[in-house]
Amino acid sequence: MLPSSATVSFNREDARTLPVQLADRIRIAIDNGQLAEGDRLPSSRALSAQMGVARGVVENAYEQLSAEGWLDAKRGSGTYVNRIGSADRPPPRTVAPLPRFSDARTPSTPKTRLATGTPWVPARASAAWRRAWREVGNAAPASSYPDPRGESELRAAIARLLARARGFHTHTDSVVVTTGSMHGLRLALSGLPCVDRTSPPVLVHENPGYRTATTTAIRCGWSVGDVDVDADGMVTSAVASASESARAVYVTPSHQHPTGGMLPISRRIELADIARSRDLMIVEDDYDSEFRYDVAPLPTLAELAPDRTIYVGTVAKTLGAGVRVGWLVAPTEVVEEIVAIRHDTGDYPSLPVQHALASLLRDGEWDRTVRRARRLYRERDRLVAAALAPYGELRGVGAGMHTTLLVDADVAAAAASRAFDMGVDVETLAASTRSRSTLSGLIVGYGAISDDDLVHALDVLTSALDDVTGRARCSRPGH
Amino acid sequence: MLPSSATVSFNREDARTLPVQLADRIRIAIDNGQLAEGDRLPSSRALSAQMGVARGVVENAYEQLSAEGWLDAKRGSGTYVNRIGSADRPPPRTVAPLPRFSDARTPSTPKTRLATGTPWVPARASAAWRRAWREVGNAAPASSYPDPRGESELRAAIARLLARARGFHTHTDSVVVTTGSMHGLRLALSGLPCVDRTSPPVLVHENPGYRTATTTAIRCGWSVGDVDVDADGMVTSAVASASESARAVYVTPSHQHPTGGMLPISRRIELADIARSRDLMIVEDDYDSEFRYDVAPLPTLAELAPDRTIYVGTVAKTLGAGVRVGWLVAPTEVVEEIVAIRHDTGDYPSLPVQHALASLLRDGEWDRTVRRARRLYRERDRLVAAALAPYGELRGVGAGMHTTLLVDADVAAAAASRAFDMGVDVETLAASTRSRSTLSGLIVGYGAISDDDLVHALDVLTSALDDVTGRARCSRPGH
Repeated sequence: MLPSSATVSFNREDARTLPVQLADRIRIAIDNGQLAEGDRLPSSRALSAQMGVARGVVENAYEQLSAEGWLDAKRGSGTYVNRIGSADRPPPRTVAPLPRFSDARTPSTPKTRLATGTPWVPARASAAWRRAWREVGNAAPASSYPDPRGESELRAAIARLLARARGFHTHTDSVVVTTGSMHGLRLALSGLPCVDRTSPPVLVHENPGYRTATTTAIRCGWSVGDVDVDADGMVTSAVASASESARAVYVTPSHQHPTGGMLPISRRIELADIARSRDLMIVEDDYDSEFRYDVAPLPTLAELAPDRTIYVGTVAKTLGAGVRVGWLVAPTEVVEEIVAIRHDTGDYPSLPVQHALASLLRDGEWDRTVRRARRLYRERDRLVAAALAPYGELRGVGAGMHTTLLVDADVAAAAASRAFDMGVDVETLAASTRSRSTLSGLIVGYGAISDDDLVHALDVLTSALDDVTGRARCSRPGH
Repeated sequence: MLPSSATVSFNREDARTLPVQLADRIRIAIDNGQLAEGDRLPSSRALSAQMGVARGVVENAYEQLSAEGWLDAKRGSGTYVNRIGSADRPPPRTVAPLPRFSDARTPSTPKTRLATGTPWVPARASAAWRRAWREVGNAAPASSYPDPRGESELRAAIARLLARARGFHTHTDSVVVTTGSMHGLRLALSGLPCVDRTSPPVLVHENPGYRTATTTAIRCGWSVGDVDVDADGMVTSAVASASESARAVYVTPSHQHPTGGMLPISRRIELADIARSRDLMIVEDDYDSEFRYDVAPLPTLAELAPDRTIYVGTVAKTLGAGVRVGWLVAPTEVVEEIVAIRHDTGDYPSLPVQHALASLLRDGEWDRTVRRARRLYRERDRLVAAALAPYGELRGVGAGMHTTLLVDADVAAAAASRAFDMGVDVETLAASTRSRSTLSGLIVGYGAISDDDLVHALDVLTSALDDVTGRARCSRPGH
């Protein structure tokens, strides 16, 4: 039977959502025989009451597992464990380890976070930042609803920015202002017609990958199909054999999140070809392409396959995640459908925020901030690479604001746990991994941290790795 | 067969969405026998190609009609016209008249809009408005993602506002910051578990009603069930016999949109009782309760039935629709689910906008703006009522920023058309009506218009009504 509620307690600090956690537990139960073929699962109502969670949590988990083939939901009769024969057995999953942090393990020392995805931003408001919001205040409030596409002045400025900073040439009319990349993904998924109403559409997704994109897709009623990544990013050839319900591919080609690969041109062409032959839309998340310290970023997929790509970007990685503004670039018919959705649902972009971003772009503040951050990150990238290189293979060096160290899963977990006890919070790759992957390790983010804290955190982390791997530390002055 | 694409052309200026327009056309075709029982409809792919619209438009229309009982979608075989026997025939629909405005009929004179739902706002930035955004600019940008519930300072200020301005006492922890009422509705619907995955959940909705709430629900995968309104607002007794799939009720009890009724306490109690016995959640949209010129607003449904009500509000009707900030108040388990959804989908509220609203509330600007607008609206309410009273029954006098004149549908359509030709744009009640209603007329909005323009527009409108009804105009000096 299903593990009792006592053993299926949730950890609300786990970055993974409750449905993902529950689905993992049920997969384990099937995998290790606690649940056998033909067993009937409790109703979502009964299980949610038993576990003290919202019924939607159980329903989402059941849906995900049904989409993966573990469970079979029979109309009006209940949910059963599928016959997992040798032929149709889905690939066994490596269950992500339990979250390291629980209420009982709060460290006594203050935490230094090696967080991914949050950038360096100036510690004080710059003159341009003040000016931008002062301009917003000088404009009278607007009585009417804004243009659901965004203000045309801002869309034009974004088109110029993409051409100038990214070499991506597009038109004002193809640009839609969003609140960030995941808003762009939500709108993209909502704007794509389903192939078949009887089963949820599938988003093909990198594994390891950006887990908020997974949860966004599931919350939008989609299922997710995993595709491996290697040192070059997504293994695009695997997309050709994706589920028949596949409707879109989410990919981070500039700098695979979180393992750092840059998708080579051959794979980009392959992905575009597969997208055309399989009738898939590509969602290209170009989340931190501003930051490369080795080679220039490759041209966007959106320029390679404009008919097949919805490009999403954000200022969350440059001007900070608090502003909530981003953009998407899409083919005309997708833009039209997205505008209709936004009109129908009252999802209008905030005018003050748009005016502020237009001012910051006009004023050169975006460029100045990116230049300053790039100088900082380049140094930190070298520092992190030098500190971690002795411990394993590094991924994603030379770009972005994090570096991935590949080590065995148990080494990663033990080192992260040890570092945590010493007040340093570092993510393991497991938290970004959904199904079995050959990749395991640590993700060391260095965006939103001071230089001093980074030096200290690396010292703690390498010491933890030394302890775990039994490596002798070099003696250093003062130690 | 289905009317050819030539006669099913869409009007993109129609406030109704394309799926709603298409569903109306198919209802007509069934009603008048163009489509008979058992007829197979074109596939969504074929019809969308034929009509040059996105496939989702056709799918949405088919789904809506299936939910209403007109069509039957048979898995793998197609969509058929249902047997509409005397027993299971859904109530016949009055199809909303075709939109009055088309590209061909753009008037040569500039339009004066008697628009509903857009408020008076100061023509120039006030000192407090400037100060609020200057404060935003003085704060450094935030690197990290904001709290998905909203900043606690703002949530506390909203709780105080609701207590002070609305007599609604709630807690900071029950408040979630949104971008407006429809964002609140989207989150509410997403946060409610479905009764049954095999058919879409149903939102019970006022008819006539706020059509953006209808389209929001449909875009969220819900169906909509109509309930009549009368002079007192929603006929709550009818909710008891709503579809078995009903999961929530959307209601505007303070000032029914658009017909102006104020739901009496007996109906409020009845609605709360039905919600409890039928396991429904009430979504209470309190969109313009700030504006009453006769009696005080009744206590909120949220206070009467806090366990059963998700209360949504917005500053779009006070500080203007451009800012994009609002709130919802919900039971704890719904707040928790909404926070999980926002975390999972990267749907964070903008920090600068939140800080600005906190400043505007602290500074008394919300109160000042509402007081000024209330004085203006009270006068305009009297002016509009005096001008229109001779033509029919008035609804919604003494509150809000629009008045509804009940006249026959053909009189309303002809008068609106005549006024339009004279440069005055006024809505008919038909645009807010989804299924057959005994109510027809004109909705005269007076929020976002100057006093002079209002006097002119009323002159044109009454003249149009005189022409249409054959009433002799009183001679007036200067005429």
